[in-house]
Amino acid sequence: MMRLIETIQEMRAFVTAARAAGKTIALVPTMGALHDGHLSLMRQAKAQCDIVIASVFVNPTQFGPNEDLQCYPRDLAGDSEKASRVGVDVIFHPTVAEMYPNGYASFVSVEKITDKLCGLSRPGHFRGVATVVSKLFNIVQPDKAFFGQKDAQQVLVIQQMIRDLDFNVQLEMVPIVREEDGLAMSSRNRYLSAQERSAALVLSQSLSLAQQLVREGERDIAKIRTAVVKRIAEQPLANIDYVEIYNYPELEPVSTLSTQALVALAVRFGSTRLIDNAILEAY
Amino acid sequence: MMRLIETIQEMRAFVTAARAAGKTIALVPTMGALHDGHLSLMRQAKAQCDIVIASVFVNPTQFGPNEDLQCYPRDLAGDSEKASRVGVDVIFHPTVAEMYPNGYASFVSVEKITDKLCGLSRPGHFRGVATVVSKLFNIVQPDKAFFGQKDAQQVLVIQQMIRDLDFNVQLEMVPIVREEDGLAMSSRNRYLSAQERSAALVLSQSLSLAQQLVREGERDIAKIRTAVVKRIAEQPLANIDYVEIYNYPELEPVSTLSTQALVALAVRFGSTRLIDNAILEAY
Repeated sequence: MMRLIETIQEMRAFVTAARAAGKTIALVPTMGALHDGHLSLMRQAKAQCDIVIASVFVNPTQFGPNEDLQCYPRDLAGDSEKASRVGVDVIFHPTVAEMYPNGYASFVSVEKITDKLCGLSRPGHFRGVATVVSKLFNIVQPDKAFFGQKDAQQVLVIQQMIRDLDFNVQLEMVPIVREEDGLAMSSRNRYLSAQERSAALVLSQSLSLAQQLVREGERDIAKIRTAVVKRIAEQPLANIDYVEIYNYPELEPVSTLSTQALVALAVRFGSTRLIDNAILEAY
Repeated sequence: MMRLIETIQEMRAFVTAARAAGKTIALVPTMGALHDGHLSLMRQAKAQCDIVIASVFVNPTQFGPNEDLQCYPRDLAGDSEKASRVGVDVIFHPTVAEMYPNGYASFVSVEKITDKLCGLSRPGHFRGVATVVSKLFNIVQPDKAFFGQKDAQQVLVIQQMIRDLDFNVQLEMVPIVREEDGLAMSSRNRYLSAQERSAALVLSQSLSLAQQLVREGERDIAKIRTAVVKRIAEQPLANIDYVEIYNYPELEPVSTLSTQALVALAVRFGSTRLIDNAILEAY
């Protein structure tokens, strides 16, 4: 039977008992509204650890003042059913007051790799992410934590934080899961109108174009980026927030593809901002 | 035999083995140049836990650009002998490169209670403290951590950080240890000339004056503060950085002493900045 735990104290007691019993522990941090991308993380977690703890917490500190915190989809009943089916042992679902009580004042920041991409578009976003993940690490003390490549910059931020602050946790990055037509799974896809849903295919298509150019031998990053921008701009419903290519995993500017680079996109369709990415490999 | 450990990896291995053997672990974070104040922390730690790990690390991130990082006293041999005598099991003495490798970019900040006292005089100081203590907590995973009341604001910052970020650590605050004539023990006392050393007695004397006023029934914080400032200003070698009284432990402004308040002083004698404090109790 999957358990639902809502307090930090109860979560700590569960983890202490599991550790004492010699179990390994996986953490899958989510904001709920679970889709197949999340379930893929949970399956991976279950394959690698004895106990899987999935947090379902819409973390207010990672939303900007004009973002979709209030309307972000919440469906604990549906999430519980899905998580249960893939072998999750515990859903940790604290309230906002449990995680950020009155007088809360401590934050974790990761510099440098957060000064671009979503760090630029969403000031404070990664501070909120690093803070809540630090809290979850300290509460759950997992052996491994599972994150999706969909949020590629987030993965790098958490990896840097683990290394810098000496968290005793191994990060596992799991590939992007896509709909059959190529749209990357996202809890925000449900905001899209039918027209926008169709237009949003331009994201995965433009990433495929970039990969095709690399396969054909193109190594000029500026040319690849221009082709991606052009492809997206052809879609009238698409409003580009950013289209960038950085070397990977350093996220530094690069002019010629020599090993790996990340093409990262953030594009608005109506009021919905979607992100997607691909790693380009020059092998 | 006391052990000296210089790498994070070796420290983790030691702690893992100690935990597996069912031992409780105390951490005493220091910057070395150990004096009786530090030794008092270590004795307390040994009385309460099986294993005492004292870190000796002059943490560069808590020093400002014009502060005394370069000349801060370092004496590992002397420190080891003293720590060994009070039952310390391990001195953790990492290099700066071990703690802050190239590309280091993650920091822990505590807001609100850091916007006053030493947080104002030493911008970035508490960010450095919170960051290095987070790292030490993650490396050592202590049951208890011991800090001196001498750094009263630091204790409150760490306490807030533990609570906010859900560190599974209990903080123990140990009283100030003073020289026979009243000067609070500090690694920086050795910077003082004979004249300055003598002048610095005005710190503990002005704190005693504040306590005497409270014993005599004075509850007006402004009057107590004025008396303390006046007493220090009578000493020509003393240059006041701050003299403040805040309610305790909230560190908020207060006009009438009703329960507890902290008198906190930072005063320069020549180029040496000393701090001292006392908790006033209206009982």
